[in-house]
Amino acid sequence: MFVIVVYDVQVKRVAKVLKVCRKYLYWVQNSVLEGEITLADFEELKRDLKRIISPETDSVLFYTFRTTRYTERISIGLQKGGEDRFL
Amino acid sequence: MFVIVVYDVQVKRVAKVLKVCRKYLYWVQNSVLEGEITLADFEELKRDLKRIISPETDSVLFYTFRTTRYTERISIGLQKGGEDRFL
Repeated sequence: MFVIVVYDVQVKRVAKVLKVCRKYLYWVQNSVLEGEITLADFEELKRDLKRIISPETDSVLFYTFRTTRYTERISIGLQKGGEDRFL
Repeated sequence: MFVIVVYDVQVKRVAKVLKVCRKYLYWVQNSVLEGEITLADFEELKRDLKRIISPETDSVLFYTFRTTRYTERISIGLQKGGEDRFL
C-alpha cells in the first residue's frame, strides 16, 4: 500500500515523530512523508506514533491508497525533498 | 477530481495562502486542505498560489486523484477539522 503522512505536532516532539516516520517512509516536505509500506509496517508505524504524540495537542493524518493509479503529485515553489516521482 | 493540498510557506504568507485554498477546499489540519475541485478551479487555485508564494522559500504540494476509490484518511491524535469522511 501507499501512504502519505502529514503531522502537526508540538515542536518538542517533531524530531521523534520524524525519526519514526523515516523508518518506513521518505521525506517530501516539512511535516509530510510518503512511501510504499506493508500493512504490518503501517500498523507498527501507527502504534509507534500513538506512543509518542500527545492526543490533546498533536495530530497525524494518514492518507492510504491501495492503488496509486491516476494519482499525481504536483509541486509549486521550492522543491524541498523526496523522490520527484509520480505516485 | 479530488485534491489534497499541503503547504509549507513563510508565516507572513500563511493567511493569504489559507484564504485562497479555502475558496475551493476545506481545511483538514494545519497546512492541509482537501476537497473535490473542477479542473478549471484547480488551475485557478495553482495560478493564485503561484502569485502569492515565494518560490525561493515556500512550497506547496498537490496530490490529485481522478478516482478516490480505495482511499482512506486515518487520523490519530487531535481531530482538528474538516469533514470526517472517507475520500
